[in-house]
Amino acid sequence: MTQDLTQRVLAGERRALARAITLVESARKDHRAQAADMLAHLRSSGRTAVRIGLSGTPGVGKSTFIETFGMMLLAKGLKVAVLAVDPSSTRSGGSILGDKTRMDRLARASGAFIRPSPSQTHLGGVARRTREAVTVCEAAGYDVVLVETVGVGQSETVVAEITDLFVLLLAPAGGDELQGVKRGIMETADLILVNKADGDLKPMATRTCADYAGALRLLRKRVQDPPGYPKALMVSALQDHGLDTAWHEMQALIDWRRTKGHFAARRQDQAQYWFLQEVRDGLLGHLTTPAAQHDLHRLSQQVAAGVLGPSEAATKMLMGLGVSGT
Amino acid sequence: MTQDLTQRVLAGERRALARAITLVESARKDHRAQAADMLAHLRSSGRTAVRIGLSGTPGVGKSTFIETFGMMLLAKGLKVAVLAVDPSSTRSGGSILGDKTRMDRLARASGAFIRPSPSQTHLGGVARRTREAVTVCEAAGYDVVLVETVGVGQSETVVAEITDLFVLLLAPAGGDELQGVKRGIMETADLILVNKADGDLKPMATRTCADYAGALRLLRKRVQDPPGYPKALMVSALQDHGLDTAWHEMQALIDWRRTKGHFAARRQDQAQYWFLQEVRDGLLGHLTTPAAQHDLHRLSQQVAAGVLGPSEAATKMLMGLGVSGT
Repeated sequence: MTQDLTQRVLAGERRALARAITLVESARKDHRAQAADMLAHLRSSGRTAVRIGLSGTPGVGKSTFIETFGMMLLAKGLKVAVLAVDPSSTRSGGSILGDKTRMDRLARASGAFIRPSPSQTHLGGVARRTREAVTVCEAAGYDVVLVETVGVGQSETVVAEITDLFVLLLAPAGGDELQGVKRGIMETADLILVNKADGDLKPMATRTCADYAGALRLLRKRVQDPPGYPKALMVSALQDHGLDTAWHEMQALIDWRRTKGHFAARRQDQAQYWFLQEVRDGLLGHLTTPAAQHDLHRLSQQVAAGVLGPSEAATKMLMGLGVSGT
Repeated sequence: MTQDLTQRVLAGERRALARAITLVESARKDHRAQAADMLAHLRSSGRTAVRIGLSGTPGVGKSTFIETFGMMLLAKGLKVAVLAVDPSSTRSGGSILGDKTRMDRLARASGAFIRPSPSQTHLGGVARRTREAVTVCEAAGYDVVLVETVGVGQSETVVAEITDLFVLLLAPAGGDELQGVKRGIMETADLILVNKADGDLKPMATRTCADYAGALRLLRKRVQDPPGYPKALMVSALQDHGLDTAWHEMQALIDWRRTKGHFAARRQDQAQYWFLQEVRDGLLGHLTTPAAQHDLHRLSQQVAAGVLGPSEAATKMLMGLGVSGT
């Protein structure tokens, strides 16, 4: 059955793609085994897409950008998949992409595939599922996989560690708004796009773009960037201005990195990063069982009361888990 | 033998104190068991000191400050112990305190005890040993335990999580030097002391102190601070100016926190924090054995080569450790 699904994904069937992603999203043990089997086969197809991470807070026009940008790529003959990483989706009742009507042209296009974020609170789990969904989309023949996030908490880091290129989408803003963007995100960004550079907002967009271009120049030079990168550009998703230039810059950056070996090196680093993360999560997962949580709570109370020292209590806890300390 | 040592520590014998700290610093299994036994007895003495964390980069006059401040406390009839957290000591060939001649008056005083940082690269290990050394000093009847660090990497966080009061020692600096201090450290500080407020540096010290006082006011109000705290003050360790005021402020802050219950709550939180840290370190310690390191390396290579997916490799690794994932 998995073999059949694998074949249909490789043949580019959209329904099979959707089902395959549902499979990798499942936490059931038998599903995990089937997913691992399927992924090993899909990976051997050797197909790879350009993976673009896109981060932007609510209000910057992310849906409009994805729709216009996606339609432009389709017009160039490229197949586009859009995935979401949204750790808050269980609370907010659905990711941005949950409301596909906000990108109805793209959702209806035959060369596009849009997948909302799975309902999942644990960011580690979201990361693995999204990585595997990217692998499925690549094997299904998609040329560009967009992974978008609202940038809450650690989700930007996750997206940056999944993708080849990390794009930060911003809205025009006056004054000292620059400080609102965390320095870590600035350092991660491969391209900054100031959206809504149209109508009354255009002068402010120009200033915002100049501010960010200046801030980017102040950052430490990264080995994976050619001279003059990363750049800050203005776009208007609403009027479809500047998106072609943005895509051109993305391609230029990727081409340069491919030539210099940075593209492949980054993918290797990412794979190794996720391997280590999953091993660590697997070990720390021993603390998440109900029995372990109960013991942790009980011992922690004794530590707070001064009955046990922290080390003493930790030794007891580790013995209870059947794994002695080092 | 441990019982004898415990009794002598409780009797306040300095040589026993030194030996007891050597015991808690040892990584040998039998020593660890003896140390646990001793600590349980020492803890039941109920004696507690005021634990003061002190952080300052090289050049701010930390040794001079500790010497002058320590001598002042001795003059008030208080016993003072000084411990160091210096994760870099193995590389730099010894902590600041290694050179006791820089605080020779304090080192020779009978009411004082100075202990250099143990040679140890692993910060988790340093943290546990320092916490346990604090416990030993408290049981030995010391009234004030100063824990100092040069503030490299994570060591400031460790010191802040070990002490009741975290003091940041700074030197006068012109211009935009304020930005050199990490925001996290500013938020952790309970008191900022600008040292070297003497001679030609006094005007610059005044400006620096005003800058930090301003920066502290901009930070989010913490529940554990009375109105007007945390403060930034000027001191001159060289001329013994302002140290009495600094001690007065420390006492005022601690008295307020004791009255409001924050003092005890912080100690409880810290004990629970270290308990959880040690449990996590114990689990992750399974990755540090030579066999595990070998497997990690081998699988990581296969992940980089694309032979195995990150999740597949992680599953293999966890199975090899005898601990299945969750």
